[in-house]
Amino acid sequence: MEKLKQEIAKIKKTNKKVEKKAYERLAEQARPAGSLGMLEHVGAKMAAIKGTLDVHLTDKTVVTCAGDHGVVEEGVSLFPSEVTPQMVENFVNQGASINVLAKHAGALVKAADFGVDFDFSPDLAIFHKKVRKGTSNFARGPAMTRQEAVQSINGGIEIVKELLDQGNVDILGTGDMGIGNTTPSTAIIAAFSGISVDKLTGRGTGIDDEMLVNKIDVIKRSLELHGLTDPKTAEADPINVLSKVGGFEIGGLAGLVIGAAAAGIPVVCDGLISTAGALIACELAPLAREYLFASHRSVEAGHKFMHERLALQPLLDIGFRLGEGTGAALAFELIDASTRVLADIKTFEEVAIINAQKSDN
Amino acid sequence: MEKLKQEIAKIKKTNKKVEKKAYERLAEQARPAGSLGMLEHVGAKMAAIKGTLDVHLTDKTVVTCAGDHGVVEEGVSLFPSEVTPQMVENFVNQGASINVLAKHAGALVKAADFGVDFDFSPDLAIFHKKVRKGTSNFARGPAMTRQEAVQSINGGIEIVKELLDQGNVDILGTGDMGIGNTTPSTAIIAAFSGISVDKLTGRGTGIDDEMLVNKIDVIKRSLELHGLTDPKTAEADPINVLSKVGGFEIGGLAGLVIGAAAAGIPVVCDGLISTAGALIACELAPLAREYLFASHRSVEAGHKFMHERLALQPLLDIGFRLGEGTGAALAFELIDASTRVLADIKTFEEVAIINAQKSDN
Repeated sequence: MEKLKQEIAKIKKTNKKVEKKAYERLAEQARPAGSLGMLEHVGAKMAAIKGTLDVHLTDKTVVTCAGDHGVVEEGVSLFPSEVTPQMVENFVNQGASINVLAKHAGALVKAADFGVDFDFSPDLAIFHKKVRKGTSNFARGPAMTRQEAVQSINGGIEIVKELLDQGNVDILGTGDMGIGNTTPSTAIIAAFSGISVDKLTGRGTGIDDEMLVNKIDVIKRSLELHGLTDPKTAEADPINVLSKVGGFEIGGLAGLVIGAAAAGIPVVCDGLISTAGALIACELAPLAREYLFASHRSVEAGHKFMHERLALQPLLDIGFRLGEGTGAALAFELIDASTRVLADIKTFEEVAIINAQKSDN
Repeated sequence: MEKLKQEIAKIKKTNKKVEKKAYERLAEQARPAGSLGMLEHVGAKMAAIKGTLDVHLTDKTVVTCAGDHGVVEEGVSLFPSEVTPQMVENFVNQGASINVLAKHAGALVKAADFGVDFDFSPDLAIFHKKVRKGTSNFARGPAMTRQEAVQSINGGIEIVKELLDQGNVDILGTGDMGIGNTTPSTAIIAAFSGISVDKLTGRGTGIDDEMLVNKIDVIKRSLELHGLTDPKTAEADPINVLSKVGGFEIGGLAGLVIGAAAAGIPVVCDGLISTAGALIACELAPLAREYLFASHRSVEAGHKFMHERLALQPLLDIGFRLGEGTGAALAFELIDASTRVLADIKTFEEVAIINAQKSDN
């Protein structure tokens, strides 16, 4: 816990003077004020993080965090847990959706095992941060111990440091893989928001009406079991929420956000599960939000409420419900564009100078 | 008119067999069915246009069509018409917003003059398709003659041919520049949809409440003056709509869509004005819609109704209200990603083969 506290203390406010200059430049560009909408805000926020109006996001990495979930015993997911390790192998073999979308965005993909129910070879090119081979079924008891919760977050923080030891990271995307993981993610947003579970629960990879009713019931019962029906309880102790109804990869995702923010690196969070991790991170370390971007709005009902709680506006809304970091990778391209908008679109003054030079020649 | 009819007759249905194969492949990929939402539909539509599952959109071009509008006399716009030629020069000098966003997307920008109230040097590197130096004030009489309307559309068709003479075009984006041009665009969607002008009219580059009331009044009066209050009148004769309340660059934008569709080239239409052009094109040539993609939903109220009439779902909704082709350029990146999703994400079968090969080694 001490290590985590130290890391949180390292997170600094972003540069509001540069942000102000960014908005001034955007307002002076040769186009109607505000006409590039969200790209202007994203560009200004990025300028504040990087401390310059001319940001170049050259080295992009997506870290896809995997874990298994004891709660699948309750019949909340369509796919068996065996799929989780298969997909991790698929990430390493560059054959998964995230590999394709990251390649398109010029980003690297690194997988991380936080709690997959499988013994990976130690030689497999992933981050080995396994806490345990899957959480316990949180419908019957806590998903993990408090110590395990902290360990999972610290694992995410370590990954940021290891990435920086290996090379440069201009922007980090978070992604997830873990059969059953929309259930803990939905429980987390329910615990913090107090919004009814019926309203928050989605169909994950595509469960039918009957399974959806069961999933809602499982989450409701679990929140009652763990005394998480009053948002104040959750707000007072976010680690408790993670340990009672969370997942190891969700802790890892929270750690990535905290570690990146502490290192001054912007983070793009992906779908429901990545955003659940980002939520835990920001409940623990509110300043982390200044480094955070929401890639897309997932089809999952709870995602919208997570974004509302984080006061983040997602860049994309195109029916994604995959995870892996696919939305984050696609959003990299828009965020990158926002940096060029800020730096490269000429102001009225610059246009006048160029035109004067042209007529001199 | 004969030339235009011939071009429309050239537009072929896209390849529905390939589209079916695309959807089959998407469903077999190692991820939950439908989990990449709109990118799946865009990828499949593009496959149908190109007749292959492995589409590569290497050569991208945005054509930004400019024109002036007599209706600005009525006080419908914040900026003076002098801005139109200045921005055309800015496009050529690579200093405008569209240049920055097109560069980011790896696309070329070509400007085209369809009716700017300025004498450009014939040496200026733009497409010279001027019909006349600005339309007439359509609040007092027709914006242009019927012959001029056809001429503007033919100008757009000619540009596609000239682009293809100069090189390859894998995908075309349309953009606009013209002070006052949200007014004719709004009048066009009002004429075809019959939806109340109050509901359809937006603030363009940022007019205040008083100017908005005036703009609505101008459009309403003009539709009455030209007998365009019943949608059946518009549907029966789209060229009449263009000539009565349109613009030269809007005709040009319609011509680009028809010309591209006739040449089998996909077209991404940008904001309110480009979509007004696309609407005219599809009213004249319904098959053109099979080649059309909507880049974004503009802040302009009428845009949504244009997309509904065209049955197109825009890829982005990030508060853009600039035009120039900026949304189209940004959407190029998502459309490009959709082609990689379709071709490069492995099916369950392909993953199994790769894994078997790995364990053989």
